[in-house]
Parts: sequence; C-alpha cells; structure tokens
Amino acid sequence: MIVVMKPDAADSSIQSIKQYIESFQLQVHLSKGEEVTIIGIVGDKSKLPAENLTSFKDVEKIVPISESYKLSNIKLHPEPTTVSVGNTTIGPGNLTIMAGPCAVETEKQLLEIAHAVKASGATILRGGAYKPRTSPYSFQGLEAEGLRYMQTAKQETGLTTICEVVSQEAIEAAEKYVDMIQIGARNMQNFILLKEAGRSGMPVLLKRGLCATIDEWLNAAEYIIAEGNPNVVLCERGIRTFETATRNTLDISAVPVLKSKTHLPVIVDPSHSTGSYKYVAPMAKAAVACDSDGLMIEVHNDPANALSDGPQSLTFKKFDALCQELKPFAKLVHRTF
Amino acid sequence: MIVVMKPDAADSSIQSIKQYIESFQLQVHLSKGEEVTIIGIVGDKSKLPAENLTSFKDVEKIVPISESYKLSNIKLHPEPTTVSVGNTTIGPGNLTIMAGPCAVETEKQLLEIAHAVKASGATILRGGAYKPRTSPYSFQGLEAEGLRYMQTAKQETGLTTICEVVSQEAIEAAEKYVDMIQIGARNMQNFILLKEAGRSGMPVLLKRGLCATIDEWLNAAEYIIAEGNPNVVLCERGIRTFETATRNTLDISAVPVLKSKTHLPVIVDPSHSTGSYKYVAPMAKAAVACDSDGLMIEVHNDPANALSDGPQSLTFKKFDALCQELKPFAKLVHRTF
Amino acid sequence: MIVVMKPDAADSSIQSIKQYIESFQLQVHLSKGEEVTIIGIVGDKSKLPAENLTSFKDVEKIVPISESYKLSNIKLHPEPTTVSVGNTTIGPGNLTIMAGPCAVETEKQLLEIAHAVKASGATILRGGAYKPRTSPYSFQGLEAEGLRYMQTAKQETGLTTICEVVSQEAIEAAEKYVDMIQIGARNMQNFILLKEAGRSGMPVLLKRGLCATIDEWLNAAEYIIAEGNPNVVLCERGIRTFETATRNTLDISAVPVLKSKTHLPVIVDPSHSTGSYKYVAPMAKAAVACDSDGLMIEVHNDPANALSDGPQSLTFKKFDALCQELKPFAKLVHRTF
Amino acid sequence: MIVVMKPDAADSSIQSIKQYIESFQLQVHLSKGEEVTIIGIVGDKSKLPAENLTSFKDVEKIVPISESYKLSNIKLHPEPTTVSVGNTTIGPGNLTIMAGPCAVETEKQLLEIAHAVKASGATILRGGAYKPRTSPYSFQGLEAEGLRYMQTAKQETGLTTICEVVSQEAIEAAEKYVDMIQIGARNMQNFILLKEAGRSGMPVLLKRGLCATIDEWLNAAEYIIAEGNPNVVLCERGIRTFETATRNTLDISAVPVLKSKTHLPVIVDPSHSTGSYKYVAPMAKAAVACDSDGLMIEVHNDPANALSDGPQSLTFKKFDALCQELKPFAKLVHRTF
Repeated sequence: MIVVMKPDAADSSIQSIKQYIESFQLQVHLSKGEEVTIIGIVGDKSKLPAENLTSFKDVEKIVPISESYKLSNIKLHPEPTTVSVGNTTIGPGNLTIMAGPCAVETEKQLLEIAHAVKASGATILRGGAYKPRTSPYSFQGLEAEGLRYMQTAKQETGLTTICEVVSQEAIEAAEKYVDMIQIGARNMQNFILLKEAGRSGMPVLLKRGLCATIDEWLNAAEYIIAEGNPNVVLCERGIRTFETATRNTLDISAVPVLKSKTHLPVIVDPSHSTGSYKYVAPMAKAAVACDSDGLMIEVHNDPANALSDGPQSLTFKKFDALCQELKPFAKLVHRTF
Repeated sequence: MIVVMKPDAADSSIQSIKQYIESFQLQVHLSKGEEVTIIGIVGDKSKLPAENLTSFKDVEKIVPISESYKLSNIKLHPEPTTVSVGNTTIGPGNLTIMAGPCAVETEKQLLEIAHAVKASGATILRGGAYKPRTSPYSFQGLEAEGLRYMQTAKQETGLTTICEVVSQEAIEAAEKYVDMIQIGARNMQNFILLKEAGRSGMPVLLKRGLCATIDEWLNAAEYIIAEGNPNVVLCERGIRTFETATRNTLDISAVPVLKSKTHLPVIVDPSHSTGSYKYVAPMAKAAVACDSDGLMIEVHNDPANALSDGPQSLTFKKFDALCQELKPFAKLVHRTF
Repeated sequence: MIVVMKPDAADSSIQSIKQYIESFQLQVHLSKGEEVTIIGIVGDKSKLPAENLTSFKDVEKIVPISESYKLSNIKLHPEPTTVSVGNTTIGPGNLTIMAGPCAVETEKQLLEIAHAVKASGATILRGGAYKPRTSPYSFQGLEAEGLRYMQTAKQETGLTTICEVVSQEAIEAAEKYVDMIQIGARNMQNFILLKEAGRSGMPVLLKRGLCATIDEWLNAAEYIIAEGNPNVVLCERGIRTFETATRNTLDISAVPVLKSKTHLPVIVDPSHSTGSYKYVAPMAKAAVACDSDGLMIEVHNDPANALSDGPQSLTFKKFDALCQELKPFAKLVHRTF
Repeated sequence: MIVVMKPDAADSSIQSIKQYIESFQLQVHLSKGEEVTIIGIVGDKSKLPAENLTSFKDVEKIVPISESYKLSNIKLHPEPTTVSVGNTTIGPGNLTIMAGPCAVETEKQLLEIAHAVKASGATILRGGAYKPRTSPYSFQGLEAEGLRYMQTAKQETGLTTICEVVSQEAIEAAEKYVDMIQIGARNMQNFILLKEAGRSGMPVLLKRGLCATIDEWLNAAEYIIAEGNPNVVLCERGIRTFETATRNTLDISAVPVLKSKTHLPVIVDPSHSTGSYKYVAPMAKAAVACDSDGLMIEVHNDPANALSDGPQSLTFKKFDALCQELKPFAKLVHRTF
C-alpha cells in the first residue's frame, strides 16, 4: 500500500502519518521526490484501517498494491483448480454442461427434463427449489420437496445435481439431497450465507452479483474458501447496465479477466444474462470459444407454461441442437463433453 | 397487463394466447387495430406466469400496467405513513436525524458519540454491530456485545437506537437491545431476511441495493409488509454507476420519485453514498431541501482511528455545525428536529 | 403507439386526448376494459409529439409499438446487407479482419504494419489520422498527412483502408485517400457528422457510443442511410459500466440482438473494448463464434512506443498467431478470410 | 506519475523502464521497498505515452498523480471564477436562473415565454434552435431563424440569451444573435466543436455527457479554455444509469465534487435530468441547497403542444411558484436572483 501526499505536503503531515502507521507495528518507506512524496507501508497490514489515511492532512490518495483476496488469488496458486462434483469434475479439459429447469415444478416434469438433457450431453442437472423472486407474490419454489425430486432424478439418470440455496436451512436440506449448491446473484454478498456454504464443505457455484465488480466477486469466493472449503466455481450471469435489449449484459470479458486473476473454474450462464432463448445459442458458443469451463443453461419441457423464466428456456429440441453445435467449438479449445 | 401482437400476427396466434390466458380463469379483451392487435388481460393475474407470453408466436411485447407491489403502493394508501420508533416518529413534519459510528467499537466510544450527537439534535443513534464487509479479513463487528452497548447508550441518553441485522440470529438479538433494525444494501434482496424482519414486527429501515431499481426496492419493502409489519422506512444510500469521484452516486431524485409511488417515509444517507466527509454537508442539505423525512449520518469521535468507514465520518464539531445549518432548511420544508 | 390511461380515468380526459390526437389527422382506436382504457393511435405519427401525451390528465403511460428507425430495420429489409468496400465486402460468408495501428505515426511504420497484417490475413488496414483524445494535451494525430500515408500503404499492399473522421473537413480529405470512413464512439450522436457521412456516399463504420443503447445506435445509422447512403457497418466496441477490470465492457450479446433487429453487418472491436492486449484473443474468438461479420484489431510494430493505445495493441507475432487460431472458428460459422 | 512494479520484478525490467522514461528527458526516482519497487517520474510528462508502460515486463500498475486538466483545475486557480454573460454574471453570490422552451417554435411563442420567465426572476433566456434528436425523423429545430427570434426576445425583454450549437456554422450564427452558447451532452467530447467554441471567445455552457466522468468533463472544458476562452460554465444534467424511473439520474454530488476540483461555475438542469415536470421543483431546491451557481429550467406556454420535451416543461404558473419557493433557499446559501 502506498500513500501519495499532496505536492506541498508539510513535514508535520508526513510525520503524523508515519507515526500512525508505525503504531500498527508496520514499517514506513519514505520517498521524497521533487514534486511528490510517497509513503510505502511494509508489513502485515491486516489490522490497519488504511482507508482512514485519506482523512489525514495533505494526503492526495491511497493506492492499494495487493489484492485483499488470497486463497482465490492466482498469484498464490498458479495452477488451475479442478473441482470434483458428484461423478464429474469442473476444470481444465472438460466443458461442463449444467442444464435443467429454472424451477423444479413436479417430479414428472423434472424426470422428463433430466432424461432429455442427459441424452444431449449435460452432466449436471440444475433445478431451483428455493426461488428468490422480486415480488413476494411470485412462485417461490417447492423448497425441500423440490430437493427430493432432484434426488430422484439423480438416482434415475445418474446425473450430478445442483440447487440454489438461500438460507442455512436450505443448505442443510441440500446436503441431504444434491451434490452441489449454488449461491445466486442476489446473495453474492450475503456473507452469512457464504460462510455457511463454506462450512458445509459442499462444492459451491458462486454466481456474480448484478453489480458486483470482479474484485468483490473474488472476495466473496474468499469468504467460502476461508472457511476451509476450496471447492468454488464462479458463474458469470450478466451485470446490470443501461442497456435494456437484454435482461442483463453478459460480461464475457470477465472470463479471461478471471483466468488472469484466479485459479478457480469459471462458467457462463447465457440464459439469465440475456433473458431470451433466442440469444442463448450464440452466447453459449462465445463462452466456449473464450475458454469457459462450462455453461449453465435453462431447459424446459414446455417453456410457455414454465412457472419461472419461461422466455429464456430452451426446448429439448433447441438444447439438443445447441449441444451438437457446441461440440466442434469445445474441441477447438481442447475440452470435451 | 397488455399483450401487443406483431403487425402481421396470425389469427391462430391470437387464439392460442386467448386460450392460454383463459386457462387461468382470466378474461381477455381483444382490440384489433389496423396496424396492431392488442390483448388486454382482466382479472387476478397473480397465478399467470405472464413473462412466458413473450415466447408465444407473433407476440411483440408484454406491457405491465399495474405495479406488483400493493401494500407499499401509494395508489392503495394515499396518505403518507408515520412510523413510530422508540420515543420518536419518522414521517411528515419531522426531520429525523440518525447519527453515530459506522461500527460500534467500545462502550466508552459509543457513549461519547451518543452524548455528542444527541446534543446536536439527533434523535436516533445508529451503530453497526454486524458489519457486512467486502473482504473476510476486515473487521466484522462486535455482534451481540455491540448491541448491548447500544442498549446502554439508549439508557444513558434516552436516544432511540437502530442497528443493522444480517441474519435471523442478529434479528433476535436486536429485538432484545435496540428499537429499530436496518437491512443493508447488500441484503436488500435477501428475501429470507426480509421475511424474518417482517415477522419480527420491529420498525425496519430498508436501504436501497447498490443496483436496485426503485420498483425492486418497493417490492423488497412489500416482502416485509406482507408479513404483517407495516413499519418500513426507505433509505436512499447511493447507487453504483460508472462515476468514481464518489463511492456511489446519490440518486437524489429517488426521493420525489418514491414520494409519488409510495406512502412510506424516505430518508437519505449522505455518508455512504458519497464516501467522503467533505460531501456530507452539501448532500444533507440537498436531501432536506427536496423533502426527505430524515438523514442517516456517520459521526465518529476520531475518524482517523475508526475501524470502518473513517473517511466518510464527521467529527463532533462538523456534525454540530451541519445540524445548525440544517435547521433553517428544515423550517423551509415545514419540518422540525 | 398506445396510450394507457389510469384505472379511474375520467371520460373528459379520454376525450381531450382523442381530440388532441385527431388534430394531427390520426385515427383513434378506443378500447375500454374493466380495469383500464387503452387508446391506440393509427396513421402516420411522424408529426405527433407523442411524449407530450404523458402530460395529459389521467395518462398512466405511453407505449411505443414500432421502432423509429426504418431503413436500418430488419422488418422492412429482411435480407442481410453486404457492404462493398474497396476490393472486399463485409457481410455473410466473409470474416472481415480490419487491423492496424491506433494512430498513424510515420509512413515507414504504417507500411511495415500494413505488410504484416496483410500477411496474416487482414483485408482492411485501419489507422487513425484524426484522434479524438480526452485531454487536449495528448497526441491528436497527423491529420491529412496521415491519410496520405494510408493511400501509400493501399498502393503498396493492395489493402482496403479505413480512417476515423471527426469533421466535414476530415471527410473531404478521407474521400481522396481512403476507402471507408469510421465514426467513432464519441461522435455516434454527432448528428451533423452523421449527415455529412451520409452525404459523402462512402462506406461508413459506425462505432457504438459508450453509453448508447442499441436503439439509439440504429437511429444513428438511420441518419446516415436517410441521406441516401446504405453502406453502413456497425461496430460494437464496449460500453461503459461500473466494472473497471477492463477499459469498457464488451457487450457481446449486442451481436445477436443486432442480427435480430437490423440487416446491417456487425463487427466487434476487442481492442478498445477491453483495453488490454491480453484479452484481445479470447474476445476475438468469442465474437467470431457468435457470428460477427468481422473484427477490428489494433496491431503495432512496437506497442511500448505507440503514441496511442499501446497497451491494447498486438505485436505482429501475436496478431499472426491469433489469425491462425481464428481460422477454424471462422469455418465453424461458415465464414472465410 | 508512479510506476508500481510486481513484487518479484527483475532488475533488468526496472532498468529498461528507467531507460525508456529517461529517453523522454524525464527523471526517474527509484524507491525499492521490501515488497515492492516504485518508480516515480519527475518532469514534463506531456510527451510520455505513459499508458504504454503497462506493457513493460513486471509492471503491476501505473498510478497518475496529477490531473491532465490544468486551466480548469482549482489547484492552479483557487478562486472561484465569475463568468460575465450579456448583462449578468454567473458565479459567487448569484443564483442564475436560465429558463425557456426546449425548442424555439415561433416568434410569438418565444416572446410570450420570455416575458413570463423574466417576470418570475429568470435572467437568461434559453431556447433551442439546433436540436440534436435521437431520430432523424424528429423535429430538428428552426436553426438560424430560431436564433433571430432569440435576438428579438432579447431586444424586447432585456434578457440575456443562450442557444445550443452543434456545428461551426451554428457557432457563427450564434455569435450574431445570442450572448452565450451551449455544448450539449451528446457533443461533450466532440473535440472539434469544443475547439471552435473556444476560438469563438463566447461564454460557453458545457453540459456533461450522459456517461462522462467528472474528469473527462473537466478535460472537455480544458479544450475550450486552452483556445484562450476562460468563460466556461459547467451544467450537470443527469447521467445514464440502470434506473429508468427518471430519464437520467441527476448526479447531485457532482456539484460539491466539482467545487473541490475546479474554479468554474456549476449549474444544474433539473428538467433534462429527470424528464418529468413533477420532479423539477424538488431537484431545483436540492441543487440550490448544495450551492449550485444556477439552474436551467424548461418552461413552455403549452407543454402539451411543445415540439420537444413537453413532459419535462413547467407551465408559467408552476415556474413562477417554483421561483418564489426558491428565494428563501437562495438566501440561505447567500445567493440572490
């Protein structure tokens, strides 16, 4: 961390900052230039409320040098991580296709979808049992009952399963019935939930918050890993911008940016980011082409009657066609599915 | 709700939509124009997954007519609500000043701040005991111990008190020790927490999410009220935009927009929105001038040593000067404090 | 266009709107529902200041049905357009690679780059002679002299050429020396320049404004086409969002969205959108995979000494490697280069 | 400017940067810490393409220390500037009210509005003659004829006048007929127009671009001042965000931020920022309360029939009421009008 002083900073200002920093058992490295004086801080800065330094006299700005996330940082862990989930893995060499309905509706529906997505190439079945909805009057999910259907689908098809969780109670239920839990966009900075997900030890899919920076996202992953759970997979699902032609804006460059900052696997959700089935196929191809580790795609037996997110769901036929089209793209990036 | 058909929509397309809508016991009101056919939907639409209609053949777009929030809607409740909290009220005629440290650090510190802000005119003491922090390695708050200090401060000064809550456990602790709970920006769409806050019956300050639209915010309030708790106060605290000169961008026009959409009181937090003590005073005046029901301002005995958000905290002297300056503005908008 | 009235709209309010609309020689189509009354407007609405209707008594909202752009609209021109430029074409079947330096610096430099990008597969040479720069103290380009170097490069290599223009004077110079002109992001709504570009008849590459919606962008294209110049190519180059890990956020979903709204070719600029050479290759692949008609990539003989945008420029070696990698992706989307 | 090296930077990397910087006749100030090496750059950096340094080996990041704008910078000009326009001044002590129609429609209309806004307290008459419109099919303004009406209105009422300009031709016409020119949001980075406005010597109202940062805005002002024209007034008119309840989001904190960065006067446009007459009065009061130097407000004799921006225009009666309400607020901030 560096403190940049104003051009005309008084010596007394510099001294009082020096004393403040040293009071935290840190060393100060002064560099007086003609135009500007810079104060470097050396040592374990975890106790220093560094932002406060902006309030000191004659301080121009504070420049952080190192990232606050450590366990998710590629600098400390240069090899890409492979996360094992159920009977599959997410990471280098694989293109993991997670597919299924936005919300689990009935056992029959779920089984029908599970068989269909497996036949097309998906290895993980997604299905929401706890649905965070903008309005309290919208369908909120089948909760534990939905999780039991997921277990049945797993037993019938051999697919690995993932469900979103929204509370400690949901995590406990998920531990019984599914293989992987998902923290959704709205809960990305629900730190209590992140810690509980960390303590569960289950593989976690961490979706990006609608307005979360990549640094905030990696800090959220850090909450999970810091509880002793390294099995985190990141999922880009669109950010909120001024553009309304799509539901959100898929930040596709987040994929290579993450690959340069973290060792965790990164997948892309073209369904939630665009909000329209029409754009799922081109965005899925783009995600594969820029080396995502996987995709999460909504598939429904009858989109027009889906209880949630029908407009962005693919029919079985469209999903199957997409999987066929994706295969040669996967091959070009040295991945299989 | 209106379904707008494409210019050349086939009769069969119109009929299949009609049948779909009627299958939900709703009435259809067809309006065939020369250029365009419009399908109005009449009745209780709460069961209709209306977004799915965009997937039907020849549909151009769906236009919602009514808001999904009801209990917080001014159309159904035209008189402004006054919320009673501790020994004060928030609403018409009052300018409620909530002030205190970002984080409760020690009992001594809190008492010193409590006496100071009371002397300057604050009626509600704020102080964070559960701190949601971007990094897991930052100070996370004193938790229940901090709440007990809040209770002591209340007993010593007679101030009403408010604390942020982040979990069911925190709500239960807050019920014992403080008068009002706060749901922070990062938890605005933590629907589990909203429902628990609703069930607690305590007055709730609901901060706006960093990228929440005003409609999403009112739907979040609806979650609380729908649990039987009408004591909700909204707090504008800045939204995330491209501008980095301030920490967030204070959306000051949210104040009159909310006044036209809801009967709930609206306050403004000039500290978190700007992130710098320098901008707190002018933004506080702006908020009062456009008829906010109150302000939430961070005040600290020693900002340079604050464990959280020092740069945006006012000293006692600056806070007192601001309160004196605010009084004539309050008078102009017919409010007292 | 539809006017939606408030639930309790008075008959007199409806009548006054009807009269207002009819005063513009338009027909009114009234549809009174139980809950809501809707007023459809039929006829040539180009003279109607429709937004004013929101000021009328009892109006809830105005819903536009048709887009304001016509000539660029796929509804009126369903076949994709191929734009001829110099000795090449942009459109179906081709993957057009535009490459070159951000700014033309010297004749020698430009020729060296031109030969290199041609050898790797580029068909259009880009090079800025008029540089819009944030600060007046930054290098502003060689202006007409730079254009003459572009002409020399064209003569020596046979490459087609494109240059950004910022004024009528620059367009006139460009007409003499290059094959295609570019309107940059900052000038996307410089309507005077758009009209002049339209009147020039030259092929125009229209970059998206940093905060332009897709609809505004297509309206900007409409300004050019309405002057009788149908040779417009759109270029997605990133939008401004809250994320700062990349210079801008590449809105990759704009590609399929545009393909559903317009017949004009669409290319992607992975250099300006990301601002870093590290992310150019993955974003170029993503763009090709989702069926862009081309790419615009910055290439420099010596990025460290580039007078503009060095950090995002590829070296000859990196550009050549990227072109080789892109070929199989192009083949998968049935394009050649 | 500071170059921060990666923790493990090689000596050879540091040396090559040192040589590069020195090749621009700049001095290097090396500071080797235990964790990190920092390279300070001293001297006239105007020729150094500093961004390129990010491409050098082992560079972590570049940190600019000083702003690129000089003439508009408060550090070099600590006293607030007063700009003289026609028979009035904009700056300390005054609250300048600019009012009038969005677009000049007829001479009769303009005179009627001019008399009305003068009677209520406006000192500058605004009226658009050149209208930048999203669609080429919308009303584009009366051009030079509109300017002549402005001259008549000035002669009849004694009001000072301002008009938006969009081209060199418009500036030349404006020089003949009005007192002040306006550069609109869409042209804020039309650098050709900024330079021409600078060369005209006329007082310039520079509106903020929809997605311009405050630093970019001050750099745009620098373009004008660098041509020898110090008579620049800034106008905050809303930025583009995700919120759609208002047309744009008024960035009210831009007012105090600008006051801390520049000596130029700052006014606020509550009409364009909100897009609705309902929000003009509260936002005008907020702007005055936080010490804006003035307001620009749209007023129309018949908003329902306005050719542009009717919904955000005040009637004479509403404008007069607002002016009366603003007077005590102005007094509180020691301004008169």
